[in-house]
Amino acid sequence: MNSYSIERYGTAFISHLENQIKTKEPQNLYEPINYILGLGGKRLRPILTLMTADLFGGNFMDALDSAMAIEVFHNFSLVHDDIMDDAPLRRGKTTVHEKWDVNTGILSGDAMLINSYQYFESYPPEIFKKLTSLFSKTAIEVCEGQQYDVDFETRDDVTIPEYLKMIEYKTAVLVAAAMKMGAIIADATEADTEAVYEFGKNLGIAFQLQDDYLDAFGDPETFGKQVGGDIIENKKTFLFLKSLEYAEKEQREGLLHLYSIKPVDSRTKIETVKLIFEESGAVEEAKNEINTYTQKAFDALTTISIDDANKTILKQFGEDLMKRTV
Amino acid sequence: MNSYSIERYGTAFISHLENQIKTKEPQNLYEPINYILGLGGKRLRPILTLMTADLFGGNFMDALDSAMAIEVFHNFSLVHDDIMDDAPLRRGKTTVHEKWDVNTGILSGDAMLINSYQYFESYPPEIFKKLTSLFSKTAIEVCEGQQYDVDFETRDDVTIPEYLKMIEYKTAVLVAAAMKMGAIIADATEADTEAVYEFGKNLGIAFQLQDDYLDAFGDPETFGKQVGGDIIENKKTFLFLKSLEYAEKEQREGLLHLYSIKPVDSRTKIETVKLIFEESGAVEEAKNEINTYTQKAFDALTTISIDDANKTILKQFGEDLMKRTV
Repeated sequence: MNSYSIERYGTAFISHLENQIKTKEPQNLYEPINYILGLGGKRLRPILTLMTADLFGGNFMDALDSAMAIEVFHNFSLVHDDIMDDAPLRRGKTTVHEKWDVNTGILSGDAMLINSYQYFESYPPEIFKKLTSLFSKTAIEVCEGQQYDVDFETRDDVTIPEYLKMIEYKTAVLVAAAMKMGAIIADATEADTEAVYEFGKNLGIAFQLQDDYLDAFGDPETFGKQVGGDIIENKKTFLFLKSLEYAEKEQREGLLHLYSIKPVDSRTKIETVKLIFEESGAVEEAKNEINTYTQKAFDALTTISIDDANKTILKQFGEDLMKRTV
Repeated sequence: MNSYSIERYGTAFISHLENQIKTKEPQNLYEPINYILGLGGKRLRPILTLMTADLFGGNFMDALDSAMAIEVFHNFSLVHDDIMDDAPLRRGKTTVHEKWDVNTGILSGDAMLINSYQYFESYPPEIFKKLTSLFSKTAIEVCEGQQYDVDFETRDDVTIPEYLKMIEYKTAVLVAAAMKMGAIIADATEADTEAVYEFGKNLGIAFQLQDDYLDAFGDPETFGKQVGGDIIENKKTFLFLKSLEYAEKEQREGLLHLYSIKPVDSRTKIETVKLIFEESGAVEEAKNEINTYTQKAFDALTTISIDDANKTILKQFGEDLMKRTV
């Protein structure tokens, strides 16, 4: 598969999504849904569903409804998370609860969560049950991940394993489920669907750890968000937690102090924190972890009973995704 | 079936529900769920699921998981509605978003909605798909009903058919679905499951219209809520909308004025509004509508292919439910 194929999945998905967008009553419920679904984004998860169905020998068009379920769920979680974070912007546009109000965000989000289940209804009962059960398990984990993330804000004893579990639940399991659904639709074996889930999960964790790294050390030209954003917000990322673990007493206390303030001009804070991240060895460790999880993902591929050519495509996709740093 | 049977369903359901309540991590997500599920309530909907399964020849114990799904969904909707209404109390106790905070209410509610789907996983694929699809359709209608209710607050041109659709969606379809699920689990025919749905839906509409009536004219001793509450809140109920339609110009303008104010002492307002409701003929019309929908519910029973004795039990249940006024 080349970039042309990825593009083909993207085009098929966007076309399918646009067919779903209809003006329905009550408008105050459905307009916000059409708005957030129309904001764009990389559509990474639905593309992964289509790609996996294709590589496992299925017809990727059969996976379009599952891809929709995944994308609508992802956008539901963004709408509710944005309320909880009081975020003004999403993908450079006004968030739903800002453009309308909090109540509209809550209710439209609820409807999206229900809608996402309805997309599976086009599958026969056995497949429907497999997809729906996987979806529910994943959705609950995403909620749990979000709750851990909220809890961590006010805790000062978060451990690295807890942090890794949080990003696994909040981010990685949805990527994993998106791929597993493609494999289920292609009628893959239980072992193969499980292996592709492990591939997606580990790649998802690696991706999120890389995102943490890039948030501090990324190129402002190419990184989508404000570089240093996590440091400004005193967010307890892998780099912060590992620095606390590795740093000497003085450096450790300096870091804790910097994470207790929000200076108007954050430039000095960002530079000092980044220095501690590097000198403590946390950056090195983050790179190691990213490599470890990427390798775990690739290891999961070896057991899958598809053509080596198709495995290479999945591996290449993973390498392209991780190319930004490591 | 006598009151002993209803009690048996209630006891079986409560016991099943209590078995589900476990201390799970993250506690901040699951504690609010256990709290709201433990607040009690009449458990009317889950009891209806068990009763219907029983009367249609099934084993009502097989319907316990569906009954849980219905009850957890109902409580999810209460948690999110209470946020939207900024309600301080639910069943005489502090609401979730007051006891914790709005974000906790949103996220715990989301988890409850997902949990409710998971309860269907104990059924085989064919039944699972039937139950889940009916559940999603119903859940979306409940959201739409809530949105219409919100929309009506700021509209001055709400029609009676619109109001009836709103209460059908917000309240009646969940009662209808609760009963239909019992029939599906008992392996009833398509026609029978549809007929019991119609029974539940029309009874649900009658019940809600009666609730509107009792809110103004109920006995403060026996009616669970504050009598006159809807009038104090300027809520556009059937009585209000019908009075606007029937009343002469002067009375109409008086009513519109009273529904534009919120006096500290509401006693005079309540008495004047009630007089208009009666003199306009709206009360008479409400009673007619309650009778019409109750009759529609009973008519739906006639086509069902179960023993007459069992039909009589359903009819008796409906009559007991509606005995409060008509």
